[in-house]
Amino acid sequence: MREPGKLAAIGADLGGTNIRLALVDPEGGLSEPTYYPTPRKGDAAAILETLAQGVRALDRQARAHGIRLVGCGLGVAGLLDGRAGLVYTAPNVAGFQDLPLKKLLEEMVEVPVTLENDANAAAFAEYWLGAGRGVGSLVCLTLGTGIGSGIILEGKLLRGASGAAAEAGHIAVEADGERCGCGARGCLEAYASATAILREARAALARGEGTALGSSFGTRPEALTAKDVGDAARAGDPVARGILEKAGRYLGVGLGSLVNLLNPDLITLAGGLVGAGDLLLRPALAELERRAFPVLLRRTRVELSALADTAGILGAAGLVLADAGLLWMPAP
Amino acid sequence: MREPGKLAAIGADLGGTNIRLALVDPEGGLSEPTYYPTPRKGDAAAILETLAQGVRALDRQARAHGIRLVGCGLGVAGLLDGRAGLVYTAPNVAGFQDLPLKKLLEEMVEVPVTLENDANAAAFAEYWLGAGRGVGSLVCLTLGTGIGSGIILEGKLLRGASGAAAEAGHIAVEADGERCGCGARGCLEAYASATAILREARAALARGEGTALGSSFGTRPEALTAKDVGDAARAGDPVARGILEKAGRYLGVGLGSLVNLLNPDLITLAGGLVGAGDLLLRPALAELERRAFPVLLRRTRVELSALADTAGILGAAGLVLADAGLLWMPAP
Repeated sequence: MREPGKLAAIGADLGGTNIRLALVDPEGGLSEPTYYPTPRKGDAAAILETLAQGVRALDRQARAHGIRLVGCGLGVAGLLDGRAGLVYTAPNVAGFQDLPLKKLLEEMVEVPVTLENDANAAAFAEYWLGAGRGVGSLVCLTLGTGIGSGIILEGKLLRGASGAAAEAGHIAVEADGERCGCGARGCLEAYASATAILREARAALARGEGTALGSSFGTRPEALTAKDVGDAARAGDPVARGILEKAGRYLGVGLGSLVNLLNPDLITLAGGLVGAGDLLLRPALAELERRAFPVLLRRTRVELSALADTAGILGAAGLVLADAGLLWMPAP
Repeated sequence: MREPGKLAAIGADLGGTNIRLALVDPEGGLSEPTYYPTPRKGDAAAILETLAQGVRALDRQARAHGIRLVGCGLGVAGLLDGRAGLVYTAPNVAGFQDLPLKKLLEEMVEVPVTLENDANAAAFAEYWLGAGRGVGSLVCLTLGTGIGSGIILEGKLLRGASGAAAEAGHIAVEADGERCGCGARGCLEAYASATAILREARAALARGEGTALGSSFGTRPEALTAKDVGDAARAGDPVARGILEKAGRYLGVGLGSLVNLLNPDLITLAGGLVGAGDLLLRPALAELERRAFPVLLRRTRVELSALADTAGILGAAGLVLADAGLLWMPAP
């Protein structure tokens, strides 16, 4: 990143807590990310100003090092159409509705902006620099508060007719199941996300089940996090283990649908929830084996993501660099 | 098909009851299909001999008319890898297991053979000649004894890492639901196929529910067909209507997953079951609206197939003609 004459892109990630940005070069090197607190939901002007501030700072940094910027890739957790530069909706992050974010941000900075769904960006990073290097097709599931996903088929991100496809968190696992944040019932996200694990853990506390979580959170279940559930499970708490096992099993149901439908070379699992490790993953893989056709499954590897939580930044910038013809990518 | 000097391909369909073949030209014209009864399951030699007999007869017919054959496309209801010429398994049709069908058939005829999953072939026909003309991406569901599906994304059939992807009949709709023919539980096929409708209708008869089906089939439920259930429903029988409504609702659950994941331009519904009409389709579309993201759904049309039951023959031949560069296809 230090040599003059180099090319780079800005990778940015608009998250619910922070806006993070870094310079990314065509070899996948990235500068130390800068963080800004995300202004409160719904304040589009403040969010735009913070994004512009971050982009301008990196633009100056690039100029100071003689680096030419080819653009800024911005990952957003929401439904959006990158070709149109339009965020349809980003309820959990910014409360945007039909916001022409690309155009608005480009009016404030001197760098062309490309929008991408954050999970699509992470999937591209996995394909470019992670476990997906050299494969033709992959699905990247990011298991966090929700479940994000990106799908690469024959080397290209699947964007669908609206630009906003690849919502694997919202395939059904139980037709009449738990209410999902999207409004439907029984989505994968309603069973195998941090939100689902918290719902189950709080329900167990409310039922007065004998769990180690009760001593710390019995009187304040709202303070509980999915990580607490994971910690209790690792310490042997049977209720917490049962919750992770159930989430894992449903994750496997979703994986089975993905293998039978798409049969990608690789499915990677990323996001905070994979920190639960085998307590989540073992039941997931067992369920997957019960559901997927063996001839399909033996050609689809399932692995943990090889990338840290900078995947979204790397991928958003990587897509810009790829569009500029600056990435050498192995033929899928 | 009559003019000398023309090029054509043989389209063939290996089904459980019949083997059907016809000559197909690059404009999508086809000769009167010829039918042969399918030899009994597991008798690979007899099936091969019948296939070879059909291919040779059309080869002679083509020569007699001065038509040059570029190949034979053979659709098979099973898991197969067309690139490898290998049928992994075709349990409902021929009982094949890991059969190098392409090589074996080519040793018996003078025409190069290309294998394709029958539902993939039907999807390609829909894309080439049917409701999918001019679209970039489509999913074609064939609702019959099972549920076959083919997926075309950006103008290309999705074949997956094994060659046998696009098994939309085996995405989950109920994690712990009915046992499916594939061995797993709760697949779409276990709820929205003719087999599922028959299971429900026979269960209703066994429970002694008050249905018009009882007078004809109460003592011989094994004689019941899905068409009988559809006929009773159209005549107003509430039990039969409830069965179709349930199947339709689950079809909608599956459609919701397909829209949220793939967001194709078009989903077409084909196969015998769509003869049930609105009694099946209305609950399906209502459930789809409840489950799919509106921004995705407004870009995905759902339509009945525009093709007759020759779609499999047309598509199998069409893929051969396309590989030979003989089809003019609109850019997706």
